[in-house]
Amino acid sequence: MPRPRVNLLSVDLIADAAIELADSGDTFGVNALARKLGVTPSSLYNHVDGKDAIIELMRSRLGARYFPEPVTGDWDEIVTGTVRGLRRLYADHPLIVPLIVGKTITDPGVIGSYDRLATALVDAGVPDDEVLAIVAIVDAYAIGFGLDLASPDEIWQPTVPTATLGRLITDAAHGAERSDAAFEIGLEMLVASLRLRLQNRR
Amino acid sequence: MPRPRVNLLSVDLIADAAIELADSGDTFGVNALARKLGVTPSSLYNHVDGKDAIIELMRSRLGARYFPEPVTGDWDEIVTGTVRGLRRLYADHPLIVPLIVGKTITDPGVIGSYDRLATALVDAGVPDDEVLAIVAIVDAYAIGFGLDLASPDEIWQPTVPTATLGRLITDAAHGAERSDAAFEIGLEMLVASLRLRLQNRR
Repeated sequence: MPRPRVNLLSVDLIADAAIELADSGDTFGVNALARKLGVTPSSLYNHVDGKDAIIELMRSRLGARYFPEPVTGDWDEIVTGTVRGLRRLYADHPLIVPLIVGKTITDPGVIGSYDRLATALVDAGVPDDEVLAIVAIVDAYAIGFGLDLASPDEIWQPTVPTATLGRLITDAAHGAERSDAAFEIGLEMLVASLRLRLQNRR
Repeated sequence: MPRPRVNLLSVDLIADAAIELADSGDTFGVNALARKLGVTPSSLYNHVDGKDAIIELMRSRLGARYFPEPVTGDWDEIVTGTVRGLRRLYADHPLIVPLIVGKTITDPGVIGSYDRLATALVDAGVPDDEVLAIVAIVDAYAIGFGLDLASPDEIWQPTVPTATLGRLITDAAHGAERSDAAFEIGLEMLVASLRLRLQNRR
């Protein structure tokens, strides 16, 4: 019996199927991915060297999709552009976040993005020993608000009396509108606190 | 054949097994949880009303575990105490993050924590229409750094030349030490930018 899909396997096809599998919430692994692609695990191993390599393929594919062009500009534009793109990526693929955050980054495209961010921060005057911390803060912020955007329309539904929360919920925006507004305030605060930190160093 | 575990089912036992199941990365759902507990799905439904209710049990259990006492003090102490506790929770249970972030919060204990945070922010002078945004920022920050702590010892392993990143990695701290240091800087920046925002309003 012919098995045409075996020969059609490519790293892009594998990456796309892996993203779909991870998004579905089903158990993630080489065997499950092979089943999804309709191939044997050993044909999959001809293209990728196990689960970690598959996760790296996903990262590469998502990086290229959400950052089709390098983020350029002044340091604050690179920070905000990076946070915005990463937030969108994490929001669209919340179940993938723990997978890609849990593995060492080797993909040259993604390394390049972080390198441009680190270089912009050094050029802005962030001391060498703080640059990677700021990069982690940028990433943490994007992850947090990516997952915030994936949260439900009603975040809280108090069934007990509250001092403040219940009152505030009544008047508040919901869903993406709420998350976007909070994200913008937080991004403003992030850039303001970075600027303040740079000024205090001078 | 006796099935003693059926009668021993309790919401705490269900919550603990659900946390273990979600932590394992296996497909999460009522059937998988019933299998793990050695009971039938219908006995499980005697205690909980489906997957959403199970996720709420997990949230409640984790909330009580990571916040055994209410966080008290001035607004900045409540912000930092809340971020620290949430970060630890999310770091210890990274695979649970998308599950608990994706559902409406009803658990009275967890609602109470958010209510205390919201009340502290109102008392500090944060305008009503910004309080929930600041709460979302606090939460996003904790989620982001919780997952950062779950990231590998070596975050980047460049296989191509870099302008800045490769040089910085060589001298940088690794693992929890790296993540903790970045988290402390970010928390300082978060509180500083909140303070700045409050001052600019006055």
